[in-house]
Amino acid sequence: MQIIRYPERSTWPEILKRPVDDSSEMEAKIKLVLSDIQTRGDEAVRRYTQQFDGAELSDFRVSPQEIQQAAAAIDDDLKAAIETARANIESFHRSQISQEAVVETMPGVRCWRRSVPVESVGLYIPGGTSPLFSTVLMLGVPAEIAGCQTVVLCTPPDKNGNVHPAILYTANLVGITQIFKIGGAQAIAALAYGTETVPKVHKIFGPGNQYVVAAKQLVSKDGIAIDLPAGPSEVAVIADASADPDFVAADLLSQAEHGPDSQVLLATDGDGFLESVQSAVTRQLAALPRRDIAAAALANSKLVLVKSTGEALTLINAYAPEHLIIMTEKADDLAAKVTNAGSVFLGKFSPESAGDYASGTNHTLPTNGYAAAYSGVSLDSFVKKITFQQISKSGLQQIGPAVEAMAAAEGLDAHKEAVSIRLRKTGL
Amino acid sequence: MQIIRYPERSTWPEILKRPVDDSSEMEAKIKLVLSDIQTRGDEAVRRYTQQFDGAELSDFRVSPQEIQQAAAAIDDDLKAAIETARANIESFHRSQISQEAVVETMPGVRCWRRSVPVESVGLYIPGGTSPLFSTVLMLGVPAEIAGCQTVVLCTPPDKNGNVHPAILYTANLVGITQIFKIGGAQAIAALAYGTETVPKVHKIFGPGNQYVVAAKQLVSKDGIAIDLPAGPSEVAVIADASADPDFVAADLLSQAEHGPDSQVLLATDGDGFLESVQSAVTRQLAALPRRDIAAAALANSKLVLVKSTGEALTLINAYAPEHLIIMTEKADDLAAKVTNAGSVFLGKFSPESAGDYASGTNHTLPTNGYAAAYSGVSLDSFVKKITFQQISKSGLQQIGPAVEAMAAAEGLDAHKEAVSIRLRKTGL
Repeated sequence: MQIIRYPERSTWPEILKRPVDDSSEMEAKIKLVLSDIQTRGDEAVRRYTQQFDGAELSDFRVSPQEIQQAAAAIDDDLKAAIETARANIESFHRSQISQEAVVETMPGVRCWRRSVPVESVGLYIPGGTSPLFSTVLMLGVPAEIAGCQTVVLCTPPDKNGNVHPAILYTANLVGITQIFKIGGAQAIAALAYGTETVPKVHKIFGPGNQYVVAAKQLVSKDGIAIDLPAGPSEVAVIADASADPDFVAADLLSQAEHGPDSQVLLATDGDGFLESVQSAVTRQLAALPRRDIAAAALANSKLVLVKSTGEALTLINAYAPEHLIIMTEKADDLAAKVTNAGSVFLGKFSPESAGDYASGTNHTLPTNGYAAAYSGVSLDSFVKKITFQQISKSGLQQIGPAVEAMAAAEGLDAHKEAVSIRLRKTGL
Repeated sequence: MQIIRYPERSTWPEILKRPVDDSSEMEAKIKLVLSDIQTRGDEAVRRYTQQFDGAELSDFRVSPQEIQQAAAAIDDDLKAAIETARANIESFHRSQISQEAVVETMPGVRCWRRSVPVESVGLYIPGGTSPLFSTVLMLGVPAEIAGCQTVVLCTPPDKNGNVHPAILYTANLVGITQIFKIGGAQAIAALAYGTETVPKVHKIFGPGNQYVVAAKQLVSKDGIAIDLPAGPSEVAVIADASADPDFVAADLLSQAEHGPDSQVLLATDGDGFLESVQSAVTRQLAALPRRDIAAAALANSKLVLVKSTGEALTLINAYAPEHLIIMTEKADDLAAKVTNAGSVFLGKFSPESAGDYASGTNHTLPTNGYAAAYSGVSLDSFVKKITFQQISKSGLQQIGPAVEAMAAAEGLDAHKEAVSIRLRKTGL
């Protein structure tokens, strides 16, 4: 980890730079996969699944038997843990249901919004070294609360054509019945355009490797909505000398183990503290099974010494981290001044991993500086808010002249006439 | 207008097809503008403004004197109309302020969300034949309510380097102080990357021609958020024989006059009614100043005869129109079943133009079928919701085992350890 002491403000942009990910080379390859699946459907999905996942599948739909077997393969402790997480995620996301009032903006002019579920959504769950069944909860629970009619899950099979049982168990738990063993760009294409067996969806959610991320970006041009533009995962920690360096080191490492391109950042006003964190990281790293991945991520990562925790917060707001942990004496005061972050963890007993799994907040969050303008996934991500308005005869009489004057000034006479003809014909 | 009588369900996709807009050819040209402004800043902006708008400007910032002159140029009736619209838009968007509760998902595990304004936003307002000062209200009012710190407005100058006074007057009315005479892709580039005089923003809003739309799409890959993917404007009308054909015709024409690529669609269960609408359209069209534009749009447009208003709604939900007008006897019943639309207008005294200008709802809405997954612009578009969580010592004791079990099952040991080390070191 790079140590930077009391950096000048002018050097901040350099310190806060993220690794640039250029996907333009992959683009041509992915476009081919997309158009192939658009024209050839299941046959192309089968071919790519064989090519990329090494699995020969005549049917990529997960069967009820496979779901049953998965449930039997999960031990009771894990089931209880998943249930704890599910219940917390449900209670936090249920609190996001909004009842909106009808607003009478003028006498006889009534306006309101109604939340309507996105009818069909696709959830992508990566396979590989970490079977992210936690992400099934984070996307499946709000989809269920929102009332999405069709929820389709795609996840890559292993070479033997199997999917990790925890993914199947969790999907079934949250009521997802359409599960397909399809991964990568071919999964995104199947969800975006539909095939003989995979239903076309309106919005695609979920993390993935560079191919998945680039495919999501590409299909979003064809009218399919996506949850968030994505980038490597990241955490920033603001801590003062009151924090436990071991806790800070553990939090930094928990982010670093995600992938070699993960970024972690500590900003502190304690010089000795910074050194203690550095030692703790070295010590803890040695014991980790994924230490090679974590070490690679740490190579991009920084420990920054600043003059005060206030300055630390200014620095971190400029970075707009996906996750922000605040371990200072007055964490609440700093929390009130956070302007750019995906999710914030306050105090020494709030590790990021609690939010990754079970506290109730969503772990699908804006990375790559997008936290400056984007929210993480929430119940809002699974609904759209349709506006309605109803104007009475006398309401139109009230508001009509303003509409006529503005339409005329914009040179849009037909807009004006839509009001005038109503006023004329009803003798208003 | 094309008349389609009792279409088979299988033909719906063809009927509901939208004109395809291929911007790939323009892309290379626009990329050049973007990179040029990224490297050369104001000098490049000045050059493109001369090239595309024919205006030579040494300073493209609108001066306080220009604002004063603009106010003097607007007559009192228009000022009153703008104030009526502003007040209604403000009251509807203020009602969208949400106070969210802290949720204790488990004892000692507290989660909440906080709405935080997007710090800096850019508003693009097209020039040309229609000076869209109404859009200044639709974007400027919620930006002001949200509390965005920096609001920058770009709008193209005419050949003499001037901007329509109604745009300047309205911008000043809603507190926008940074107004630049820059249009097209060069405006989007200036907002996205910043120049010596134009501040870089986090999110760009507003309509525009194909160049503007394509430029917004391109900069969104570089981490700048945009309001909505855009397409030509459109309206669908569901009406039965109880409606006045003149009102329906006026509403169809008010949408058709936007541009030759606008789309309008009527679905009705009344055969004679359909013919009356057709005659009314022909009659009213002849009187319109923008009749050539409207006629071109009508060439793409359809009058569809269906068996019932229920079937009409099913058809229109499949279309997912930007605007939907329901003029039937039981408009409320149908309204409750709308699943895909941007904004809905109920009853015979609710013309779309009322919502375009003054009723209070926002007129920046999802087009091109995006209404199936996207909401229109609202107060939500100018804030992000940051999640927070604070876990107490005993809270971590409660939730810790679930986090440990799930992290272990996902093979993410450092995630587990971030909890375990806390439990160990505090003797929990």
